[in-house]
Amino acid sequence: MEADLIRELSQILSGLPTSGVLAGIGDDAALLSPSPHRNLLVTTDSQRENVHFRWDWTDPESLGYRLVAVNVSDIASKGGVPWSGVTAVGLPQNYDPEVLRGVYRGIAEACREYGCSLVGGDLSRDSGRWNFVLTLLGTIPVGIFPARSSLSEGDSLYLLGRPGRARAGYLSLLRGVGSELLEPARRAFRRPRALLAAGQALSRRPEVSATIDSSDGLERSLSELSLASGLSIRVEALPVTEEVRTWSAILGEDAETLVWTGGEDYDIVLGVRVGQEESFLQWVRSDLLTDSGEEIHYVGRAVKEDDQASVFFDDTLKLIKGRGFDHTVS
Amino acid sequence: MEADLIRELSQILSGLPTSGVLAGIGDDAALLSPSPHRNLLVTTDSQRENVHFRWDWTDPESLGYRLVAVNVSDIASKGGVPWSGVTAVGLPQNYDPEVLRGVYRGIAEACREYGCSLVGGDLSRDSGRWNFVLTLLGTIPVGIFPARSSLSEGDSLYLLGRPGRARAGYLSLLRGVGSELLEPARRAFRRPRALLAAGQALSRRPEVSATIDSSDGLERSLSELSLASGLSIRVEALPVTEEVRTWSAILGEDAETLVWTGGEDYDIVLGVRVGQEESFLQWVRSDLLTDSGEEIHYVGRAVKEDDQASVFFDDTLKLIKGRGFDHTVS
Repeated sequence: MEADLIRELSQILSGLPTSGVLAGIGDDAALLSPSPHRNLLVTTDSQRENVHFRWDWTDPESLGYRLVAVNVSDIASKGGVPWSGVTAVGLPQNYDPEVLRGVYRGIAEACREYGCSLVGGDLSRDSGRWNFVLTLLGTIPVGIFPARSSLSEGDSLYLLGRPGRARAGYLSLLRGVGSELLEPARRAFRRPRALLAAGQALSRRPEVSATIDSSDGLERSLSELSLASGLSIRVEALPVTEEVRTWSAILGEDAETLVWTGGEDYDIVLGVRVGQEESFLQWVRSDLLTDSGEEIHYVGRAVKEDDQASVFFDDTLKLIKGRGFDHTVS
Repeated sequence: MEADLIRELSQILSGLPTSGVLAGIGDDAALLSPSPHRNLLVTTDSQRENVHFRWDWTDPESLGYRLVAVNVSDIASKGGVPWSGVTAVGLPQNYDPEVLRGVYRGIAEACREYGCSLVGGDLSRDSGRWNFVLTLLGTIPVGIFPARSSLSEGDSLYLLGRPGRARAGYLSLLRGVGSELLEPARRAFRRPRALLAAGQALSRRPEVSATIDSSDGLERSLSELSLASGLSIRVEALPVTEEVRTWSAILGEDAETLVWTGGEDYDIVLGVRVGQEESFLQWVRSDLLTDSGEEIHYVGRAVKEDDQASVFFDDTLKLIKGRGFDHTVS
């Protein structure tokens, strides 16, 4: 890769937090000094052209921002603090360096917002289209880690966030439905926010057993929790908000399906221990949701079911074709 | 991604070292416990179909091995110990899961050999061909880090390894030159070894100022050292071995060019402080090279030159077209 371009990208990234960074970009490996009494979190996520994004739907800055946010969401859902990342970029034939600069400006913007830095990377030709991988390190106090597997029988399941937004935005872009009403949905798809402060606060609450971010949608998050804990999950309510109902109507979509199977909202799904729901919800309403624009939704309950971990619906919810489903209007 | 496939890949990776791994594959992020009194190294490198490899040149196991080895080389060149990695895989349309399993078997083989584990990853469709990214964490005692920038005026430059091998292997595969004599070269290209023990030993020697791995070839390694240190490098000798002369003759290539511009050998280029060459070489010959199959080669010297960091050739070496060059036969 051209030394000039790498120097330019390094300049775009300059001024990011350097706490614990002893040597960043410019050597065979970055050198970091871990904090005493803290553990490390490691996550990696990709953004691939024509799979996760299309250039006619987004701009390089938003894409760079998104690459960071989706990784921060994984650190956030476990209660950690984003620290340092490294990128690996696959460049198509005859790529435009201004696109690359734009992506790095977006990466820098998100890193500033979430308090992390970029300490290295790999730029390489790819025989296909653009693809971007970010591996992000986070730190977390020893003893904190709300594992997926720590969901217990009887735990209530909640979702913190605004599910269905990103899917509505995606469909609006896919189908060229330009309605102004859908702009917040398109923005949620292009530039997801990670629930960093909320994730950290949740991980410290004694009422919270397990957490997972909803990167692949509510259905998938519940399946993963069920698989990891060996428990079944009975879904009792779908968090369909008024805005999602409005958007679904414009898009001619079923609102429940949007919320159930639509991913990329980067909300947090969590288990709350039996008998601790009241104190949890009191805290959520008084401390967590204040001015955040986020919402808390009851989703269902973890149950023991025939030795078979699965996600199923309460009688009041009717499953359709084993995937999406329909809320029984009473 | 299918839960079954992820479970299969996790099984392939089971039994790898888990020192300091509190939670590996199967959560939003891996949880690691860093060693006290050690710093962290972070590096990332990719293997992309039809850029770094072709399936008619290699097999999935070798490719997986290579993905690990090229990252280990970066940790090794700084003197570190490989610890934990995360992968990001771009899957082509209609990919063969057996290829993926093969790559993971190769990853597991190399991880076992180099003593590290895989603690997470991202599997995702890609609109192009196969691409694999590995981000590898290493650990290193506080105080050790032979930075590229610590090359000093007057330092001698040495290369440890066998340069030109991988390039000869690559050309043999590219041109379908199947000669048995070239088999070790093809193997070096397919399954590079990382100089892990040697890198660790070098980083502890007081005579060694700076190190870099030669992933992109000798020319590029010297340029990077020159850029990072602000010094020029005068090349005085090219490490052309007998085997490379033989291979070059078969391939109809210039042996010096092979050694100079050919990359992917994953040798180590290093600076040795003024006046300390003798003790260094004594140690190298008595302790470092024993039975390793590797060689040490004097390459040149770091000099101050008109405020302009550059790599140039001694009078006895004749530069051709500013890139490759010709050894002046005296």
